[in-house]
Amino acid sequence: MSKFLSSKYASLEPYTPGEQPKTQVLTKLNTNESPFPPAPEVVSAVKEAAENLQLYPDPDCTELRKAIAAVQGVDPDEIICNNGSDETIYFAFLAYCDSGKPAVFPKITYGFYPVFADITGVKYREVPLKEDFSIDPEDYYDAEGAVFIANPNAPTGIPLSLDQIEGILQHNRDNVVVIDEAYVDFGTESAVPLVAKYDNLLVVQTFSKSRSMAGMRLGYGIGNKDLIADLNALRFSTNPYNIDRLAIAAGIASLEHDEVNREHCRAVMENREYTVDELGKMGFEMTPSTANFIFVRHPEIHGSELFRRLRERGVIIRHWDKPELADYNRITIGSREQMDILLREVKDILSEEVAK
Amino acid sequence: MSKFLSSKYASLEPYTPGEQPKTQVLTKLNTNESPFPPAPEVVSAVKEAAENLQLYPDPDCTELRKAIAAVQGVDPDEIICNNGSDETIYFAFLAYCDSGKPAVFPKITYGFYPVFADITGVKYREVPLKEDFSIDPEDYYDAEGAVFIANPNAPTGIPLSLDQIEGILQHNRDNVVVIDEAYVDFGTESAVPLVAKYDNLLVVQTFSKSRSMAGMRLGYGIGNKDLIADLNALRFSTNPYNIDRLAIAAGIASLEHDEVNREHCRAVMENREYTVDELGKMGFEMTPSTANFIFVRHPEIHGSELFRRLRERGVIIRHWDKPELADYNRITIGSREQMDILLREVKDILSEEVAK
Repeated sequence: MSKFLSSKYASLEPYTPGEQPKTQVLTKLNTNESPFPPAPEVVSAVKEAAENLQLYPDPDCTELRKAIAAVQGVDPDEIICNNGSDETIYFAFLAYCDSGKPAVFPKITYGFYPVFADITGVKYREVPLKEDFSIDPEDYYDAEGAVFIANPNAPTGIPLSLDQIEGILQHNRDNVVVIDEAYVDFGTESAVPLVAKYDNLLVVQTFSKSRSMAGMRLGYGIGNKDLIADLNALRFSTNPYNIDRLAIAAGIASLEHDEVNREHCRAVMENREYTVDELGKMGFEMTPSTANFIFVRHPEIHGSELFRRLRERGVIIRHWDKPELADYNRITIGSREQMDILLREVKDILSEEVAK
Repeated sequence: MSKFLSSKYASLEPYTPGEQPKTQVLTKLNTNESPFPPAPEVVSAVKEAAENLQLYPDPDCTELRKAIAAVQGVDPDEIICNNGSDETIYFAFLAYCDSGKPAVFPKITYGFYPVFADITGVKYREVPLKEDFSIDPEDYYDAEGAVFIANPNAPTGIPLSLDQIEGILQHNRDNVVVIDEAYVDFGTESAVPLVAKYDNLLVVQTFSKSRSMAGMRLGYGIGNKDLIADLNALRFSTNPYNIDRLAIAAGIASLEHDEVNREHCRAVMENREYTVDELGKMGFEMTPSTANFIFVRHPEIHGSELFRRLRERGVIIRHWDKPELADYNRITIGSREQMDILLREVKDILSEEVAK
């Protein structure tokens, strides 16, 4: 850091993304990417749009918002597109929290929320999970500020029901409630239908996971028109052209062929059930995940040890050094082939443990 | 706006980007895009990278920074890549200004600077230009906060010399000086060679203009390692994956074929001299621009009137309704064909004026 950096960032600890290895690895199950490429029509749309790179994109993302609106059953004015859902959430911290209005979110959740709070100078309260890692919705009733809930939660994968989300909304009429649905398409009910009923609801989704476009950076928020106008005021005050021509083209094509994405999600869910069964047979404990990842621990091998040994064998999963998480690992659900490699290596490591 | 929006944004006025018309227009000379597509190898690189959209990009942009470093003669650690140069400048406002440290910039300059100041809650002082629209560097000596200078300046196109920039740097040892070189490649001397000498210098450049990639969103900052570490801390606290796989691939390919970009810049500069000559013959007054735009007025027709009449004829230029600028228009320098259309229509409009 330089001597010039504003003292307000003295204690800022940036987010640490999962490793994106520079060399080829055998099996990458650490950042919840899709094992499937997007529909061929998405790739074609990108290639076609590549012919006009010298011209600015449409900062209003008009056609893309229409395409999202058609799939989500909302109005295009109820949508803001962003450079990944992280950016939408960052804008929500800017818009709906301040020195008098803190942020409230689970103690174990997407690790970026406390970072967003720190960089925007917002105080926050972390609400402990229940013993079984689930969220108690009543803990968020009558919150003292904006509420941020990942649904399903990360890294546990445990969802709240739509009724539970609605309870939180009803008991926070004066607070914005952000429901971060990055992983919703793998078996969780979306809160988008509640947008028409609650002016305090902002739903955040992404093309990165269920639409196989982590490499493209495209996310969006859905909320009533006034919330979207707030977020657009921030977007047009920071980086109005944040979404490039190719992301717009890819997003539209992806939604026009959304059945391909849904098919991919079904395959991931099948692979999840398969992996859960197989790991269960080996003695693993797991949270009931409805995401494209599972959160696992084994009574006989520490999380950091399993992580390290798998890495030596070319399988990368995600481990956190925090005390409350260190015994666990998060494993992305990939293709059947990837899961079979994981299962084989895990079985091998466990048998080495027993032989010790 | 919603009732939930933080009161800190009560008077925020977002930036208004130049119009990106939804329908085909004859001649678009309003947002300083290149009239030339990027090198064919850039388009090929994008098409190739489109095959791996399901995987996250490298958040460190390692290969892209190496490519920029090679062209700019700096170390990769002296570079931060961003989603357009606007994002780099936004981070600089966050990092180097705060409630005790205002921003200082010219009264007439890139219209986004006051918006960046407003959204980051930073006070600013606007320094008047000289009578001839040029910047007096001594006005920025011993500034009370971070200095932001577009070089060449916008929308005038008038540059400062490297000696003048160095004077500002020498007289601001305790302030960061941001030199925004969005338009530097059309005939202005870059301040990048001063980075090794001044730890308070941040140079900002973009692929949008001279590298024909406005549609791709790619910019970067060059400064000493400590400044870059500051900005990376902010990037990793807001949106670490802000640059997508295709932008990285396009950027690398563009730099590998930078002679194509330089050739395009030479063509734009020739077209600028041609347009300046022709408009001069018609009685236009112009600032001495070294950018890919010119800033013009005519004693016999008001800026807003010329703008409106050209628009009716399918030629879009840029006009601002502010009192100090309203008499002028900014015209992007496009291809020779585009400039001939502009000149023909302007001549026609002026002859109608005389006939009145």
